[in-house]
Amino acid sequence: MSRIAYVNGRYCPHRAASVHVEDRGFQFADGVYEVIGVRHGRLVDGTGHFDRLDRSLDALSIPRPMGRGALLAVIGETVRRNGVVDGIVYFQATRGVARRDHPFPKAPTPSFVVTSRRGIGPAPAALAEGVAVHAVPDKRWGRCDIKSVGLLPNVIAKQAAREAGAYEAWLVGEGDLVTEGGSTNAWIVDRDGRLRTHPATNAILNGITRQRVIALARAAGLSVEERPFTLAEAFGAREAFLTSTTSYVLPIVRINDRPIGNGHPGETASRLHDVYARFAAEQGEALS
Amino acid sequence: MSRIAYVNGRYCPHRAASVHVEDRGFQFADGVYEVIGVRHGRLVDGTGHFDRLDRSLDALSIPRPMGRGALLAVIGETVRRNGVVDGIVYFQATRGVARRDHPFPKAPTPSFVVTSRRGIGPAPAALAEGVAVHAVPDKRWGRCDIKSVGLLPNVIAKQAAREAGAYEAWLVGEGDLVTEGGSTNAWIVDRDGRLRTHPATNAILNGITRQRVIALARAAGLSVEERPFTLAEAFGAREAFLTSTTSYVLPIVRINDRPIGNGHPGETASRLHDVYARFAAEQGEALS
Repeated sequence: MSRIAYVNGRYCPHRAASVHVEDRGFQFADGVYEVIGVRHGRLVDGTGHFDRLDRSLDALSIPRPMGRGALLAVIGETVRRNGVVDGIVYFQATRGVARRDHPFPKAPTPSFVVTSRRGIGPAPAALAEGVAVHAVPDKRWGRCDIKSVGLLPNVIAKQAAREAGAYEAWLVGEGDLVTEGGSTNAWIVDRDGRLRTHPATNAILNGITRQRVIALARAAGLSVEERPFTLAEAFGAREAFLTSTTSYVLPIVRINDRPIGNGHPGETASRLHDVYARFAAEQGEALS
Repeated sequence: MSRIAYVNGRYCPHRAASVHVEDRGFQFADGVYEVIGVRHGRLVDGTGHFDRLDRSLDALSIPRPMGRGALLAVIGETVRRNGVVDGIVYFQATRGVARRDHPFPKAPTPSFVVTSRRGIGPAPAALAEGVAVHAVPDKRWGRCDIKSVGLLPNVIAKQAAREAGAYEAWLVGEGDLVTEGGSTNAWIVDRDGRLRTHPATNAILNGITRQRVIALARAAGLSVEERPFTLAEAFGAREAFLTSTTSYVLPIVRINDRPIGNGHPGETASRLHDVYARFAAEQGEALS
């Protein structure tokens, strides 16, 4: 089955999916995106992702490319045409094509692109053994709460992590505080047994999986604080882990080559993975 | 004459000029660009722009799309095919097309796009009357010295300026220091008659026009200090002005509705405009 993409009103072969060179997504990073997990042909926390897309678009005054019903139809059709039952759907909206000039064009027609592919959830080995993260300075801009395609700082951070042999970068901002990962949210279980993750300020992207894990953890009787932690606190934590749409809940066993806890995946992280994976498999939202 | 663009080895009608939706320029802002002025069919400070392109590419470990000679040939051909004698040439290199994943792809083939259009230099009215700028917080990332297409913060700043009725945004960082404009460098003539502009640190894009104006001003016997100034110093300055490839040297007569100097274009700024405009018209580098 060959891959199909949706681009501005048409379904086309993935290899032929293209946008104009003056699309503001290409020239200005003037666009936003979402990635939703697909499990058993259903969307994992679809409503949360669609709401966040609206929030990102509104923050940038980019018109919504279509209504919620049409959006769901296009996403469903793209998922189906690609034969994706367990995987992801990626969609990106930009301020559209205009003669190059920084300020917003007068009456923009937003561009909208959807792709889908198979594969979701952490690799079994990563889950069983845990992963390493590599700390780098957080050099991003002041509105990380907007899920924009301006991801160059994240690209650089994640490349540095890969070169250091780590799975993910942890971004460290002012006061030695860990904000989040390059494309995941950052968590610890502190010495008092409390789950800690950075609050949803302008300094982080408020992950849909992050929000879901907070709710699931609390429902399971765990204490969760949305309060920043320092890199030093992470080094001394009982456990560390990350969350994201594609990685679910993944235990972290090393930060900068220093083992966390006993150097093996923590009990809380492993348990939360299972709870989240069950949620993703069982509570998906139907595609139209 | 219809517009022609160069895209990855081919010249094509501008309306058909497109890149793949998985070009990393579109999904990650993982690319860099330059804009060079064309005067009398020659490149204004071409070497400076080409050197800066190399610097930006090297900083991001993006392979150079072609050698300097080929680059000059493609740019020259694009300028000629568009019949541009006085205008600009825009070119953008990205890390190319790859399956979406933040870290660098293994063996990327960079994308390269060139467009050209007519029109260069400030509008006569703007030059004669001066322009207003609007101060906004500088929320950009920590590597503004790289000329990346991650321009969303600049877009937002320049849109805010436009909505405030101003020509340009001035970005104000820590300590009330003016770093630069949304797409121009920021200057004042201070109370002691010295030209002041932010030094070429990671906090600004070191404009080619900025560098040229520094050299021309010094050659004309003016005192130039690459030292930051505060917004308060700008309010009290004798003159203020901006520099860029497309605007040359443009006097600023208002900042946030407060008149600068006597509220009319300053003598130094107007003189530097003339000196720079003469340089641009007479000292262009031949296209191959």
